[in-house]
Amino acid sequence: MATTVGVIGGGQLARMMIPAAVNLGIEIRILAEQEDMSADLAATGVGDYRNRDVVLAFAETVDVITFDHEHVPQEILRELIARGVPVHPGPDALQYAQDKILMRSRLAELGLPVPDWARVENPEDLAAFLAEHEGRAVVKTARGGYDGKGVRVVTHEHEVDDWFQALAEDANGGALLVEEFVEFRRELAQLVARRPSGQIVAWPVVETVQRNGVCAEVIAPAPLSAGRLADVAGDIAIAVAEGIGVTGVLAVELFETTDDRLVINELAMRPHNSGHWSIDGSTTSQFEQHLRAVLDLPLGATGTRDSWSVMVNILGGPSSGTLIDRYPVAMREHPTAKLHNYGKDPRAGRKVGHVTVSGDDLDDAVYEARATAAFFQD
Amino acid sequence: MATTVGVIGGGQLARMMIPAAVNLGIEIRILAEQEDMSADLAATGVGDYRNRDVVLAFAETVDVITFDHEHVPQEILRELIARGVPVHPGPDALQYAQDKILMRSRLAELGLPVPDWARVENPEDLAAFLAEHEGRAVVKTARGGYDGKGVRVVTHEHEVDDWFQALAEDANGGALLVEEFVEFRRELAQLVARRPSGQIVAWPVVETVQRNGVCAEVIAPAPLSAGRLADVAGDIAIAVAEGIGVTGVLAVELFETTDDRLVINELAMRPHNSGHWSIDGSTTSQFEQHLRAVLDLPLGATGTRDSWSVMVNILGGPSSGTLIDRYPVAMREHPTAKLHNYGKDPRAGRKVGHVTVSGDDLDDAVYEARATAAFFQD
Repeated sequence: MATTVGVIGGGQLARMMIPAAVNLGIEIRILAEQEDMSADLAATGVGDYRNRDVVLAFAETVDVITFDHEHVPQEILRELIARGVPVHPGPDALQYAQDKILMRSRLAELGLPVPDWARVENPEDLAAFLAEHEGRAVVKTARGGYDGKGVRVVTHEHEVDDWFQALAEDANGGALLVEEFVEFRRELAQLVARRPSGQIVAWPVVETVQRNGVCAEVIAPAPLSAGRLADVAGDIAIAVAEGIGVTGVLAVELFETTDDRLVINELAMRPHNSGHWSIDGSTTSQFEQHLRAVLDLPLGATGTRDSWSVMVNILGGPSSGTLIDRYPVAMREHPTAKLHNYGKDPRAGRKVGHVTVSGDDLDDAVYEARATAAFFQD
Repeated sequence: MATTVGVIGGGQLARMMIPAAVNLGIEIRILAEQEDMSADLAATGVGDYRNRDVVLAFAETVDVITFDHEHVPQEILRELIARGVPVHPGPDALQYAQDKILMRSRLAELGLPVPDWARVENPEDLAAFLAEHEGRAVVKTARGGYDGKGVRVVTHEHEVDDWFQALAEDANGGALLVEEFVEFRRELAQLVARRPSGQIVAWPVVETVQRNGVCAEVIAPAPLSAGRLADVAGDIAIAVAEGIGVTGVLAVELFETTDDRLVINELAMRPHNSGHWSIDGSTTSQFEQHLRAVLDLPLGATGTRDSWSVMVNILGGPSSGTLIDRYPVAMREHPTAKLHNYGKDPRAGRKVGHVTVSGDDLDDAVYEARATAAFFQD
């Protein structure tokens, strides 16, 4: 059977697939964007994922293609399929991750809970939407946004004129997505994995804490999520995965609104920051599960190993030296913390690693995880 | 600080250090005996570890040297030290793993509990020992034995004449080790890790089940080991590690005798089969701990993640095809089992992988782990 997984993109998500591949004895080959990237150890090629020839040549060396990111162009994905290369998630699913207007439109079609939204082509369209939504809205570029980039909260129709201008100059044209500003109590994320043959499993819903648009902390499972909330979150993510035919891991970011609804914020069709806790906290990590799913192998158990797992991102990294320079003190003070170092140079705001602490007491786990991460951010 | 660990030997122990190194962002380089070995992914060199030039050249590419096995010759180890390369465990400790007579002698000196033993050079010596021990004894070659090789239970002084003959023809001369045949209730193993600067930690003592001299199963922690038994086992292993200056992971195999004593059977100065459960069952795996120890980093917590973890070796592998060919059925039937595939070709008796199942119920965990492993051995 197929045993060589090819990953396009050499970032930390590809890197964290390596331990899972080593454990399972699955060969992993990575097409990295450049030398010395996070997933360097298993990089068998370096090249531009937007270059058809580069991707096709890489695909010849593997049994199935998957991804560290969602940016491989549709025409290349479709050519891979035409050549008989399994691609998971496939282009029909990935198009929704690549275009937020398409995604909102499809989710609405499926009857899933999304914020009010509209496609806007100019300040007049935006003014109309603002008028209907108490003068406040969130505008997003349809393509290319991540970690808070390409997202602006606006109260005036001219606050995204630069984006309208850029679209006017773009040969492909296009529009912006505008959404109602959702008053939420907290943010949640629901991770699921789905095999090509249909099996689907869900991890417990988690609470995510964002800072400056970037995931900062995750608590698994989300506090006060037992019962109905967990069921609804799971049902939503399963409906998304099945409705748009996702294969592999899918993360659905959700708002828990102040009026007690769950609405979908964003999707990611790959292992996701909200699932990093699963490496140490779940019987099956999202990275192992992703490999199993893309090889169409039966999925592993998704239960928690401890009452609580808390993941804190290391953002930016230390002001001097490397993460490893801080290990002697951080490890001495926090012997239960699991350190994950992505092998990237420190840079303001960059995700360079994360810490997970698991245990029976949530307050202790939160304290330990934050305190450990703090050693690496000064 | 030092961040590149060099591992001499490319077997599954080196392989299982790779995920730990990836997580911690520690560079690992492996000197493999040949191409396509188990630890191939991180092999940066291929060569004979008995060749001084090969080892010295490899050592120039790393910050610290450690091992997948205990067989690197003393003179090469001592030359590395002379050249300023940190070696963990060092030659002063490793000599005891390399020569069982030296080991028994040192353990006796330290006042640690060992079976009655003697150094025997000929059948007459052996006859004398047998006469003193009810006509039964265990004879071991001093060097080169593993997994039951180089061990014979004898009732007559001429049953190891071939070994005496080989020693007589060996320019280095030498002798055999003879030990009393210990009547034991069960076998235990105590794993500890020690840093060069002295910190030492112990995992819970485990029960090991051997078949044909090879480790077949491990139950962690050992049933009925709470309290005194665990304390004594831990104290023995700590005394061994400190007494002979082991750095890195040390496994002490113990007999629990029918008259309620613990006596030392064998030592291994490296991650050990009796500690594989710790990958999935302990906060810190023996492989992560070994890397931390050899880099003289603070050691991680050694507690269990679940009430019980049961590890079952996959010995030999399937009669046809590969381990991965069996994944579709094994994974479907056993979603909680953690599969570890060493990437080795199946061969009778060979350790090609292992399965760990953790949970609150020991009987369930034993059943699941055995049933999963059975899919890979037919």
